[in-house]
Amino acid sequence: MKDEAGFTGKPHEDLAALLAGEMAAVDALIKARMASKNAPRIPEVTAHLVEAGGKRLRPLLTLASARLCGYDGPYHVHLAATVEFIHTATLLHDDVVDESAQRRGRPTANLMWDNKSSVLVGDYLFSRSFQLMVETGSLRVLDILANAAATIAEGEVLQLTASQDLKTDESIYMQVIRGKTAALFAAATEVGGVIAAAPEAHVTALRDYGDALGISFQIVDDYLDYSGTSGNMGKNTGDDFRERKLTLPLIKAVAAADATERAFWKRVIEDGKQVAGDLDHALELLARHDALAATRADAVYWSMQAKAAISGLPDSKIRRLLTGIADYVVARVA
Amino acid sequence: MKDEAGFTGKPHEDLAALLAGEMAAVDALIKARMASKNAPRIPEVTAHLVEAGGKRLRPLLTLASARLCGYDGPYHVHLAATVEFIHTATLLHDDVVDESAQRRGRPTANLMWDNKSSVLVGDYLFSRSFQLMVETGSLRVLDILANAAATIAEGEVLQLTASQDLKTDESIYMQVIRGKTAALFAAATEVGGVIAAAPEAHVTALRDYGDALGISFQIVDDYLDYSGTSGNMGKNTGDDFRERKLTLPLIKAVAAADATERAFWKRVIEDGKQVAGDLDHALELLARHDALAATRADAVYWSMQAKAAISGLPDSKIRRLLTGIADYVVARVA
Repeated sequence: MKDEAGFTGKPHEDLAALLAGEMAAVDALIKARMASKNAPRIPEVTAHLVEAGGKRLRPLLTLASARLCGYDGPYHVHLAATVEFIHTATLLHDDVVDESAQRRGRPTANLMWDNKSSVLVGDYLFSRSFQLMVETGSLRVLDILANAAATIAEGEVLQLTASQDLKTDESIYMQVIRGKTAALFAAATEVGGVIAAAPEAHVTALRDYGDALGISFQIVDDYLDYSGTSGNMGKNTGDDFRERKLTLPLIKAVAAADATERAFWKRVIEDGKQVAGDLDHALELLARHDALAATRADAVYWSMQAKAAISGLPDSKIRRLLTGIADYVVARVA
Repeated sequence: MKDEAGFTGKPHEDLAALLAGEMAAVDALIKARMASKNAPRIPEVTAHLVEAGGKRLRPLLTLASARLCGYDGPYHVHLAATVEFIHTATLLHDDVVDESAQRRGRPTANLMWDNKSSVLVGDYLFSRSFQLMVETGSLRVLDILANAAATIAEGEVLQLTASQDLKTDESIYMQVIRGKTAALFAAATEVGGVIAAAPEAHVTALRDYGDALGISFQIVDDYLDYSGTSGNMGKNTGDDFRERKLTLPLIKAVAAADATERAFWKRVIEDGKQVAGDLDHALELLARHDALAATRADAVYWSMQAKAAISGLPDSKIRRLLTGIADYVVARVA
């Protein structure tokens, strides 16, 4: 349903419609660059992922940031494709690491082919992303994306050791999600401003927006894992619990736990000895300590930070849609 | 044992001695950049690999190429560390893909920790390599290394599908080894010339040298897998056979096979149904068709190509040592 201005009420869809021509160029570039004439396994795996769609939120943020800053050159399209390639490469490797069977409601590549293909095709996409960004000729863009890539990998490794350790607190959790999610959001928006040669204050505003939006986005994701609805496609309630991942809701419940509750968390998360009924008991403990409500409040706080970051930028339709996206992310948990 | 000029007769060791100060700087940079204050698993894994040593041949080639072209700035050290990081990252991922248990005579990281750590720490090292090369500020260097990274990943994926397929011929084999080995050798020498702002003809000569040396090096490696001696540390005769990898010796034997032999190769490689005595029979077939001698001849051919590539460069001690390295690579199979 659209209102009189032609908007759907979903700001990311409205933004995609506003930038439809450029999004089509990004899609075409992604399809061209994910191919390989020498290794036919590569397009098989990448097509499986790319056809599954996904929201293409990260490339959209890059295009929007560049256009917001008045960019009229061609390279925001390269950067948007770069960001999506990095994202896709990390998904391929994450699914190997998590031993996942489903992604976006379809079997994962590691299940359809094997872990080997997921590891190596991920490497291929990462190197392709690197070629794309070199084509922009901007050393500053390369620096931002190289730093983001290192932060992402570091966050993923930290998650490996931290996620099953009851000593993991909110500050470690923030490091993990800044790495696994916010670093790429922040780079996606920052490089949009940089390629447009925007004033430093605008570049900083865009980076801070992406960082806060990414944090909010990931907290919502972790929240929904314990209160999933039909809007939460391709993921089931309790996946993180079964994978013994200490995300924000659990961290809050563990911090408030008495000795008996602590023993429960130790058994199910650290020792991994889960039995029938444990998820229900975990949900009871989350409710007892208002852990989900507190998690939602944190998501809303970061959404507000995102909006505040760009509130000083000149008013424009794109800026209003970016603000709308920050609202929309937390509307999923309203 | 050293001769009167202080040389050991092993040209890579002599070159390392000649460039000892810069190699120490490369080692220090590698140690500094492989660290991570946030994720302690990272230095654990990287220290395991870096302490195991290895020949550091690739960074040595970068330093030597830059010095050969008269470079006196600091960035060949960054590039040498970059090249070693890319190499180490691919080793970590290769060991996951090959399910290897040993590397350089020690247990592999995937065995010491797990596949997850190997995948993610590999990603981390790759992103660190990327940061290092950005610091050089040379877009041309970035372009060369981005292309090399894509060729490496493509070669690895191609190997996945080609290595157990009897249709794989020598031209596909060349694509695979250019990817898995020669691309990084070629980039290592080329960026040395580029950072030194050498004349184009010198840059091309260095790249061609690295390419041919890498090809020769890999053919020798594949040869030694069927005629291993004590000099071939950490690898056992027949590893490739047991892993059903169609390398050059087998490709030559398959090309000359009669129907009975073909059925044997199909069973042991394509179908993977190996029984006791199969490796001995494979060695008999290699001997029957002179496949090892022909493989060695190819290695010698590429060693000569490597020497020819740099024969037109001004005479210098470093050039003579690079020529010596090309000889030394094939001396392992003399």
